[in-house]
This record gives sequence, C-alpha cells and structure tokens, in this order.
Amino acid sequence: MSRAPAALVDGRPARAVAADDRGLAYGDGLFETIRFVSGVAPLWAGHMARLARGARRLGLSMPDPGVWAAEAARVAGGRDCLVKLLLTRGGGRGYAAAAATGPRRIVLCLPLPALDVAACRHGLRLRWCRLRLARQPALAGLKHLNRLEQVLARSEWRDPRIHEGLCMDTDGHVVCATAANLFIVRDGVLATPALDQCGVAGVARAFLLAQARRRWPVEVTVLRPADLQAADEVFVCNAVRGVMPVRALAGWRWRPGPVTAALGYTLAARGIGLPPTLPRRDR
Amino acid sequence: MSRAPAALVDGRPARAVAADDRGLAYGDGLFETIRFVSGVAPLWAGHMARLARGARRLGLSMPDPGVWAAEAARVAGGRDCLVKLLLTRGGGRGYAAAAATGPRRIVLCLPLPALDVAACRHGLRLRWCRLRLARQPALAGLKHLNRLEQVLARSEWRDPRIHEGLCMDTDGHVVCATAANLFIVRDGVLATPALDQCGVAGVARAFLLAQARRRWPVEVTVLRPADLQAADEVFVCNAVRGVMPVRALAGWRWRPGPVTAALGYTLAARGIGLPPTLPRRDR
Repeated sequence: MSRAPAALVDGRPARAVAADDRGLAYGDGLFETIRFVSGVAPLWAGHMARLARGARRLGLSMPDPGVWAAEAARVAGGRDCLVKLLLTRGGGRGYAAAAATGPRRIVLCLPLPALDVAACRHGLRLRWCRLRLARQPALAGLKHLNRLEQVLARSEWRDPRIHEGLCMDTDGHVVCATAANLFIVRDGVLATPALDQCGVAGVARAFLLAQARRRWPVEVTVLRPADLQAADEVFVCNAVRGVMPVRALAGWRWRPGPVTAALGYTLAARGIGLPPTLPRRDR
Repeated sequence: MSRAPAALVDGRPARAVAADDRGLAYGDGLFETIRFVSGVAPLWAGHMARLARGARRLGLSMPDPGVWAAEAARVAGGRDCLVKLLLTRGGGRGYAAAAATGPRRIVLCLPLPALDVAACRHGLRLRWCRLRLARQPALAGLKHLNRLEQVLARSEWRDPRIHEGLCMDTDGHVVCATAANLFIVRDGVLATPALDQCGVAGVARAFLLAQARRRWPVEVTVLRPADLQAADEVFVCNAVRGVMPVRALAGWRWRPGPVTAALGYTLAARGIGLPPTLPRRDR
C-alpha cells in the first residue's frame, strides 16, 4: 500500500467534498486529467496553461501552479497513474458567483485505465453519435465540469468492439470523440476541427499541433463527414492514451499512416500511449 | 438550534459527498429546489414529476418518491425553508454511465432567501444578458446539474437594482431569466416560451399553466423581444419566489396587470411569494 493520500481537498487529505460545493451544484468549475509516468507529468505545462485559460474565462481565480504541482506530486507518490485536478468556485447557493466562498482545489489519484494494445496499434472502431453538440462559444474549448453531453453521447452504445463515438455539432460539423480530439490527414495536410463553438481543446491536441507545425501544413478548420471519408489517415488523441489511429467508422475504413505514426511516437516517447503499427507496405 | 440534520447523503446525516461523485465530475445528475412552508411543500408533486421525467431522459434510476419525501421532511424539520434535492449517478470515472455506482440522493436544507417585498409587489427591473443559451434538445427543459450558462449570465451584472437577467438563445428567441421562467400577456392571451431547445421547465411555470388554462387562452410558443415590447403584462416566476411582475427591461416599461395578479394569488395562497400590487386604476 502506498502512503500517498488518494485525494486532497484544499491541500488536506479528504475523500469527500462539501455538499454545497458549486462544482456539484452547477458544474461551476474546471478539471484536468493528467497522465503521470513514474511520478512525472510529461504534459504538465499544457494542463496548467489550459486550466489558467479556463479560469480566466469563467472568472475563477487560478491557484498558484506550484501549489497544484506539489499536491499532484503528493497524491501521485512517484507512481504511474492519473491525477485529476478539479477547480471549483467553492461553496455558496445561487447562480451569482459573487456569493461563492472562493476557489476550491480537489486533487485525486486515479488508477491508469487499461490500454487496449491492439486497438492502439492497429486502429479504433468508431461510431457516429446521434447526440449533436450544442454550439456555445462562451464555453467552447474549456474542460469545464458541464459534461452531460459527453455522458449522453457515450451512453449510446455498449458494444465493447466500438472504442469511441464521434460527435457532430447541431450544424453538422464534426467536432470530436466523446473523450478524444480528432485529426485527419489528406494530401499531406493535417487538419483538426476548430473548437470555437463546442468541444474540448485537448492538451494532447495542442501538443501535437505544435509538433506537427514543424513538419507539415496544418489546418484548424471546419470538418464535415465527407472530409473524413476522403482522408488518407484519421486518428484521435487524448492526454491519457496518446495517439490512436482510427480504422473504421460506419462503412469507411482507414489504415494507420505515416503522419499518425510520427505524431504517435512524439507522445509515446514521453510515456503517453503506444506508437501505432504501420501496415507492412508503408514501413 | 434545530435538531434536524442540515444534509443527508443516501439517507445518512453528512455534510460532504464523495470526491469522485459524477455530479461533481460531470454534472451528471438533476436537482430540485423546493419551497417548504411550515414543513410542507405546496408544489411537491410537481417537483417529483419533473425529477422523474429528468431521470428517465438521463437514464438515471429514480428513487421512490416516498424516500425523497421522508428525507426532505427530516431536514426541513417543520420549518419555513428550502429543501434542495440532488440526484446524481453516483461514483465512477469515465463518461460511460455503465461504470457508475448507481444513483445517489443528496438532500440539503437551506435558509429562505430574503424576499424583496417592493420588487415582488411592484415589479422587477430586468436586463438583457449578453450570453445566448445554446440550443440542445437532449437537455432542454431539464433541471440538470450543468448550469454554467446560468452562472455566466448571472455574472454579467452586480448592480443590486437589477433583479434578473433575461436570456435569448443563439437563434434570438427569448427563453427565460437566469433563475425564473417568463410569461407575457397580450390582448388577453397568456404566452410563455416553448422550452424544447433550451431552458428549464419550471415547476411554478407548470403550476401556473395548469391554473391559467381554466381562465385564459394560453400559448407555449416562440417569443421574440418584439413580443415583450408589445405585451400588456410581463412577469417571471419560480417555485421559491412565486410570481414576480416585471416593470422594466432596457427602455421598456410595464405595470403589474390583472392576469399577473390573479396568477400571483394562486401561488401566494399556497405560501409561495407575494401577490403583486395593482396600480390603483386597475383595481
């Protein structure tokens, strides 16, 4: 048994949060789910940057990143694990934020989810979700605590052979998977949906965009289903599982390609996910 | 000091909720804020009906209403107060609801908010919120725990002379105030926005619609700002404060009218809110 506490609330070991917390009452807060590799978080800076950006947009005060780092290291205890940070507006009833007691930090250590090695190497099977994401620029891109759309989208299937569901918004633009961002490669150009109307701007997505811009033309743009159909490569990514090629969606099929593999290596080299395996003829 | 517990979690006195609760993690749940008058809730049946409807739509199991009633009575302890019920999907990580530990009941007793008697009698001053509500039919009407839009809309003003903010959706339809539903009266017809795209279908709204249908023509429809401008009476309502006439919004002015007063009496007679005061010439 590790002696690290499983959870800290405002820096104190605790397994519970005040019942009047506005994170519970209204989803009034933000979160980050951070991959720790032997007690170190390779994408730490990206998570802190997103949390600070979200706090600014929601009018929350952002605790000192050094405090987050110390608390995350404490619950991680040198392990391979996930650390989840939640930043809520604290207690207080009523929508008016002025009535809130101030920000609250919740830091949890979670076990790593099992990695489906074959799927990560050879590609995921996806489905289209029926749920369309609402267009809300005031919340777009944020990793906030209002995630009922993702819960509903993920509840549309139980077939374990389907690894993820892809969501469009109410205008028919392709946005993201329920828990991952989407990229496609077509004619040597890497493209990913713009997230100014909905979706979460993933930390792995930002990392990969920065990596990719050194090597390929990159577009952050509107994507429609036909763009996926015409793509040479399709992959999804997140900060927990890394880059995951997509091999099937509805009747469409793709194989892991060289851009997916190269980007997959940049995260796998940092301990996040596995590099995809290219079909023999592409090696 | 009352000996009633301030909060029950799954029936046990507690002031805190497990830090991995999906209500906190994702807003994966529903709530009701219920006015108790001397320990009795006049709109109890409406709250239970809405909670059951919401649970069905989110795929949550609805606890027995008798259990809710016993727990609410226990925290209310015969007082004039608010009782807040939260129904979450329990613990468990990841958006997949199948991984959840099952529903969790949280029952809190809250003090009554101060009633602004002059505003309730003579009318509220409203503003337009800049935030537009996103159109999401999958969540429309529900009193779910994803309320960041309301928090952001309510944060747009601090002037205490402004009592409420009115929100349009992204199509420019008038939907509701941040914490109240909207009604207008024009040429003897009572109208309120349809809530099939966004907004919360209030329990007071449902009660008033049922009352009104016995006496006046009623329309549940799309309302635009011009409909308010042309209205003879405008009021907002919720299950805590009852019917509240609106006297000002941007440059427009109204006075409490006879339909507002009559409907206000139906709730005030049950202990919820105050009846509006009609200007002398209308009495």
